[in-house]
Amino acid sequence: MNLEEYLASPVCAKPEGPEDRIVMSSRVRLARNLRDHAFPTWAKQKGRIESLQLIRPAVESLPKLDSAFSAGMEELATVDKQILVERHLISREHAAKKAGSGVVFVEDESICVMINEEDHLRMQAILPGLQVQEAWKVVDELDTQLEEKLEFAATTELGYLTACPTNLGTAIRVSAMLHLPGLVLAEQINQIITSVQKLGLAVRGLYGEGTEALGNVFQVSNQRTLGESEAEITERLGKVLRQIIENEENARATLLEDKPHTVYNHIGRAYGILANAHIIASKETMNLLSLLRLGVDLGMFKGLDRGVIDELFLITQPAHLQKQHTDKLDAEERDVRRAEMLRTRLRKIERPRIPKNK
Amino acid sequence: MNLEEYLASPVCAKPEGPEDRIVMSSRVRLARNLRDHAFPTWAKQKGRIESLQLIRPAVESLPKLDSAFSAGMEELATVDKQILVERHLISREHAAKKAGSGVVFVEDESICVMINEEDHLRMQAILPGLQVQEAWKVVDELDTQLEEKLEFAATTELGYLTACPTNLGTAIRVSAMLHLPGLVLAEQINQIITSVQKLGLAVRGLYGEGTEALGNVFQVSNQRTLGESEAEITERLGKVLRQIIENEENARATLLEDKPHTVYNHIGRAYGILANAHIIASKETMNLLSLLRLGVDLGMFKGLDRGVIDELFLITQPAHLQKQHTDKLDAEERDVRRAEMLRTRLRKIERPRIPKNK
Repeated sequence: MNLEEYLASPVCAKPEGPEDRIVMSSRVRLARNLRDHAFPTWAKQKGRIESLQLIRPAVESLPKLDSAFSAGMEELATVDKQILVERHLISREHAAKKAGSGVVFVEDESICVMINEEDHLRMQAILPGLQVQEAWKVVDELDTQLEEKLEFAATTELGYLTACPTNLGTAIRVSAMLHLPGLVLAEQINQIITSVQKLGLAVRGLYGEGTEALGNVFQVSNQRTLGESEAEITERLGKVLRQIIENEENARATLLEDKPHTVYNHIGRAYGILANAHIIASKETMNLLSLLRLGVDLGMFKGLDRGVIDELFLITQPAHLQKQHTDKLDAEERDVRRAEMLRTRLRKIERPRIPKNK
Repeated sequence: MNLEEYLASPVCAKPEGPEDRIVMSSRVRLARNLRDHAFPTWAKQKGRIESLQLIRPAVESLPKLDSAFSAGMEELATVDKQILVERHLISREHAAKKAGSGVVFVEDESICVMINEEDHLRMQAILPGLQVQEAWKVVDELDTQLEEKLEFAATTELGYLTACPTNLGTAIRVSAMLHLPGLVLAEQINQIITSVQKLGLAVRGLYGEGTEALGNVFQVSNQRTLGESEAEITERLGKVLRQIIENEENARATLLEDKPHTVYNHIGRAYGILANAHIIASKETMNLLSLLRLGVDLGMFKGLDRGVIDELFLITQPAHLQKQHTDKLDAEERDVRRAEMLRTRLRKIERPRIPKNK
């Protein structure tokens, strides 16, 4: 599969991971910068092109990336860059970059390296379910191998130097994408967010910093990168994540015990609208798909698995929809095509039923 | 069938009538009072009981009412009186009456006489579709026959005397129940209401005076009862109704031409919610059923006819729902049972499709 085929292909269901009822994915990213090269945002385009020419072959030569897709940002169409954003491979900021920046990633999306985003290197490992330790191991190995080829900016006192001081030191960000419809329906989510923030962790929306929590999906990550080792940061976050999973499970159990009709009502209506609307916006779609995912978890949908829902989460987004059509679609047309796709997909499955053991 | 069986039985689909895509029913009612008997609201209970004892046998003896149901209001349980209100046979005011008031009506609901509501007699003929002339003939015949048995209060100058001066003279009210989702969706309904009111007619909600236009159903009726003959009033209203039918047809055609996705979207979502909700209130139900009825008119539902929708309009209402259960249901429980009934009924039918000729 080449990059164009990858971008045009409908997304395949992701492999399963531990706790993937609630944890959609785990991610660890490291920021690194070259010694004696200006940070990308300080460098002129010439400087960025030089550093890219230095970094890109080094990254491509890593054993785990030998059959990876690799592209300069100027080679990618706007819609394709947007697809990479929607697949959570690159940031919205990186999608705006042109010559002098690049991206290297593997087809199963478990490893992605952004070159000349805010830092010279942003290496990420992304695994399904709760696998923060495993993701750390993957990215740690990449970092070790790369350090043999490139000289990174670091001091013994400050650790790795980064463009933004909030990343200084380990330059690690460990995060997980959590699906928390139970805590949202039970109106406990704000309390959980406050507690998590008090522990020095950040809670963000679906597309990271400054984005909304669409579809009841929340990203939890470490804030501090200084004064703790990578292993300590990863372990501490893992513990908090396990606590949030337990809170979500409890919220679901209590809701089903106390207000089963309310839960089934939300899920039933979500299915009814998704399977029968003729115009539907992206935000509403995500919020309703979230309820369908909860319904799958509760055993309300025969023959529908989480993978299909997670795929619909992606392919109903603007760039993915646009990619399926040759004409340029405006927002109104997208809303019609999105509804068409959802009707076609969801009418194949049986309508939701209250699970037998209830 | 006795009265208890009638009240407990699920409503049968009503016979079809002309223009019943838009005109749900036509009704003519006459108010009459006995000479030398105080009006019901002025009389003491003893007086009302006396007049009821005079009127009831006379009404029951009419040829068209010889196998009618007949009951004193004190004989009916609250839920049963409420059922008669929901079936548009008696007014909410009449449902509050006890000893000294009564009701006589035929099983197919085409004739209903309220005794000692506001006036001694309120005779009504109710026919499906646009049949105001036919309804007038039915009620005129009842009135003629009754006048041979009872002496009505009237003067040559004022005509028939009534409790409320707005009914004086002919004491006739001609009305039709119109389903106008096209004019509502096209946002032309207020303009139509204003025009109709300028013609001296009244536009009201689903349950008459002072009620909301639930389910896009509007009642149009004459206001004046003095200075015109019954035939003139009926003919004039008939003409206005035909004009509104044309406006509604035009609104639907224009909507389908200009915004087909919007129309299908409203109808699809309405179906999706009705067929999948687990909690649904009466008002929301009526508003969504209205869109389903429009969908039936547009040919979007295979194997579903207007009669089924019109039956659902009725049997999802509070008293009808309560009648199907022995335990007293509170509003929350009704919302759950209503949703249950709708899911069961609507899952039998095929999901809506865009009509082939579009």
